[in-house]
Amino acid sequence: MSKDRAGARRPPVCEAFRFRPVGVVRSPYTNPKDLPPPVFAPPRFFSRVRGRIVVFDEFAPALDDLEGFSHIIVLFAFHRAKGFKLRTVPPGQSRLRGIFSTRSPHRPNPLGMSVLRLHGRSGSALDVSGLDMIDGTPVLDIKPYTPRDRKSRLRTGWLARRAHGPRPSR
Amino acid sequence: MSKDRAGARRPPVCEAFRFRPVGVVRSPYTNPKDLPPPVFAPPRFFSRVRGRIVVFDEFAPALDDLEGFSHIIVLFAFHRAKGFKLRTVPPGQSRLRGIFSTRSPHRPNPLGMSVLRLHGRSGSALDVSGLDMIDGTPVLDIKPYTPRDRKSRLRTGWLARRAHGPRPSR
Repeated sequence: MSKDRAGARRPPVCEAFRFRPVGVVRSPYTNPKDLPPPVFAPPRFFSRVRGRIVVFDEFAPALDDLEGFSHIIVLFAFHRAKGFKLRTVPPGQSRLRGIFSTRSPHRPNPLGMSVLRLHGRSGSALDVSGLDMIDGTPVLDIKPYTPRDRKSRLRTGWLARRAHGPRPSR
Repeated sequence: MSKDRAGARRPPVCEAFRFRPVGVVRSPYTNPKDLPPPVFAPPRFFSRVRGRIVVFDEFAPALDDLEGFSHIIVLFAFHRAKGFKLRTVPPGQSRLRGIFSTRSPHRPNPLGMSVLRLHGRSGSALDVSGLDMIDGTPVLDIKPYTPRDRKSRLRTGWLARRAHGPRPSR
């Protein structure tokens, strides 16, 4: 099969990757139903939601030097997701959308990504705001948010119509 | 052990997660040594690097509706990374930094995240620029980049001194 065909060959290196939690989210939300769907929430809704990212003691040294950053990227597992869909109807929408064009938890690999504001660190805990995960969410990775992660002149596809609220009725 | 202790208990739900590649990166870089360390590259260096994200045919329908977005988030595996460190000396630096304050591939879970510019889609392939991964990198997830992922008033810790280039000599 040629490289130029749209369908990719499976990479020969590895059939699957095994990731272990390095910590856990401590959030005021205990049930997924308590959260408004993050991409549809009012712009500053989550900035008030405070909590902690607590890493297991063995990983505490890996947090060194994070304090100087204003924002962190947290990769986590949607541990409550059961199975996945290729297309889904996002909350409040009426049309099916490809799952990779949504932030739905029901993805082929149930990986989540949130950018949080970092307020401080004590030992193995990071004090954060902007939380849109539930309490107990397994954390897989933490990265510093850098200027390269900040993009301008965004187009936001099917979300754009929704993000600006319902259309005015005529 | 109390929840308020800094050390978190391991979440009871799951000891490890197994993720399978959903596709692969097609990049002009074939060797990690060909890439400048992304966070240290000149601001527009990677924006010229073009390539493709090709998903396996079975996941092609999941790409529907992505075309309307200007940028995508790609989560991938650092498949060449062997083992991890809790602290590392970033390229060109002289001090050890906690691994979670860096974008090093040698992380407890070798997960990478890049924001790419999306130029178009044909079938199961996305035409992108901003690539900072090597050819053959296994893709684990693709998400739309939304206004919530765009943060302002960044502080960039130890990186700030480096990001502005070497200090003027006195």
